[in-house]
Amino acid sequence: MIIDCHGHYTTAPAAHQAFRDAQLAGLAGPRRPAPEPARISDDEIRESIETTQLKLLRERGVDLMIFSPQASAMAHHVPDPATAVAWSRACNDLVHRVTELFPRRFAGACQLPQTPGGTLDDAIGELRRCVTQLGFVGCNLNPDPSGGHWTAKPLTDRFWYPMYEALVELDVPAMIHVSASCNPNFHALGAHYLNADTTAFMQLVQGDLFADFPTLRLVIPHGGGAVPYHWGRYRGLADRLGRPPLGEHVMRNVFFDTCVYHQAGIDLLYRVVDVDNILFASELHGAVRGVDPETGHHWDDTKRYVDNVGLGPEALARTYELNARRVYPRLNAIAPAVP
Amino acid sequence: MIIDCHGHYTTAPAAHQAFRDAQLAGLAGPRRPAPEPARISDDEIRESIETTQLKLLRERGVDLMIFSPQASAMAHHVPDPATAVAWSRACNDLVHRVTELFPRRFAGACQLPQTPGGTLDDAIGELRRCVTQLGFVGCNLNPDPSGGHWTAKPLTDRFWYPMYEALVELDVPAMIHVSASCNPNFHALGAHYLNADTTAFMQLVQGDLFADFPTLRLVIPHGGGAVPYHWGRYRGLADRLGRPPLGEHVMRNVFFDTCVYHQAGIDLLYRVVDVDNILFASELHGAVRGVDPETGHHWDDTKRYVDNVGLGPEALARTYELNARRVYPRLNAIAPAVP
Repeated sequence: MIIDCHGHYTTAPAAHQAFRDAQLAGLAGPRRPAPEPARISDDEIRESIETTQLKLLRERGVDLMIFSPQASAMAHHVPDPATAVAWSRACNDLVHRVTELFPRRFAGACQLPQTPGGTLDDAIGELRRCVTQLGFVGCNLNPDPSGGHWTAKPLTDRFWYPMYEALVELDVPAMIHVSASCNPNFHALGAHYLNADTTAFMQLVQGDLFADFPTLRLVIPHGGGAVPYHWGRYRGLADRLGRPPLGEHVMRNVFFDTCVYHQAGIDLLYRVVDVDNILFASELHGAVRGVDPETGHHWDDTKRYVDNVGLGPEALARTYELNARRVYPRLNAIAPAVP
Repeated sequence: MIIDCHGHYTTAPAAHQAFRDAQLAGLAGPRRPAPEPARISDDEIRESIETTQLKLLRERGVDLMIFSPQASAMAHHVPDPATAVAWSRACNDLVHRVTELFPRRFAGACQLPQTPGGTLDDAIGELRRCVTQLGFVGCNLNPDPSGGHWTAKPLTDRFWYPMYEALVELDVPAMIHVSASCNPNFHALGAHYLNADTTAFMQLVQGDLFADFPTLRLVIPHGGGAVPYHWGRYRGLADRLGRPPLGEHVMRNVFFDTCVYHQAGIDLLYRVVDVDNILFASELHGAVRGVDPETGHHWDDTKRYVDNVGLGPEALARTYELNARRVYPRLNAIAPAVP
């Protein structure tokens, strides 16, 4: 079985965005009744999924995708908490409908209603709702709700501890994933996402979070940002900071996905990072669409790169299935392992 | 001949830091006469260099280092322009003395007196002084003088154009290099530096700076941040943004150094980036000090990794010498090529 742990609903029907536009218009203009989430039919959802995400998953032989709302549209920089809650609920409910319509194909991961400077109460409430009521298996946690101004506390700060307590209690991991960039210095897909991945990892190296949460699991997407390419730098910095080796200090709890869109990058990832820390993912219909003219294949067809690394069957099984089941154990109820 | 294009005077005598401390104390307290730069003897400078930087260069068979003031100490976040000018002059004058004492071993690259929100006038003035009076061959340009708050304009903005005009006129490149982080989210060495490299590259992909400055040369240090590991992502994003292929669009003007502290990273760099765009560097006595227990060699002994890539003599000559002479042509006056 092949599980892709990182996909977003980037193809949601237009009415969903119209709801968001109405929300934002309400915030900008005179007070009006809060808009209602869009009425979207099952057929509209089916079509939005079957023609894109599911078509590609089938073509590529991927069985199941952990599916969350569009990351760049989470827009945690909008400061109104009630708006954030309503938007997250609408996004997560839509993902839930996808998982109900295609129960063998998609498992849910939720967006959290974070705001810049806000508390985590709403985010924890929505996490609990999604996991306990909607059957979601994970969430996306934004280390920078400001959208590129980086005004939040580092992930190792006690500010975040109530979230980690909930994650541990619910036995779900968080993928560390920022949203749109409001800072013109940072292109969202080409800088902000990767910077956040790199930043989060180094915060974990500096701190000692997993001493307090030994069972907490964090997924750093986009192949771990700059980290594997600079693996020697991080090993050396851990040493310079008096931290234990990375394997003991962070790599029992941190996982990188395979959203790296060329063969050389995936080869490097496997060369330096233990296979137990690598989760297969494509983020398909995500950042990089279209076909690489050098290979004739889609940039985000990451299964091709993984298959070409030259791994043995055991390492492939870990990458494609077993690691995901370990990191996202709630998957086992949704998609029992084939004996 | 082997030229290391990225070294900082991280071992400057303590009196130099005492001058800086007096500067900052003057800013914090009641107005006092501005302090004078430290009196440092030639012997003190010799000792600070011979026991560390030069010792390692000799041991590793490196002939010449392009040497600039300590990057993390540039501290462009301190907003007072006069303080920035005095500090930059003192730092650059000290580097100049190193180049005078060891003229065959070190060539200067200057720190620029940038400030958050300030003009570039002082920076351009100091660049001119260092190149025309002190014989410097390059400079370090900080895309984020705020130190991790990223309040400046992107590098493609016309704000920066007077600097680029001066660089082109003087025929020197700029290394894009941030300084200390004032944002607790970003560890300077483990996040801020690499994020800045990644960010700068993506700004150049988004924009079209080299249409306006076809002979401008920018060095992105630390192996290009996250970029080579995500080379497919950048190729795909350039395509998605309607930009020409990276080779035409940015790689005639952008160069990565080899400050990547493990073999797998250096191997990847050469696998995806044309050898003409790679400059040998170690940043020795920089971010990552000490010995890698896995190899028994210094993390920052990057020559070892480059030698192990399996390059032919032509590619090695480009990496070690010829590219540096092309990017930093003023080197040719200082260190004539051996016929």
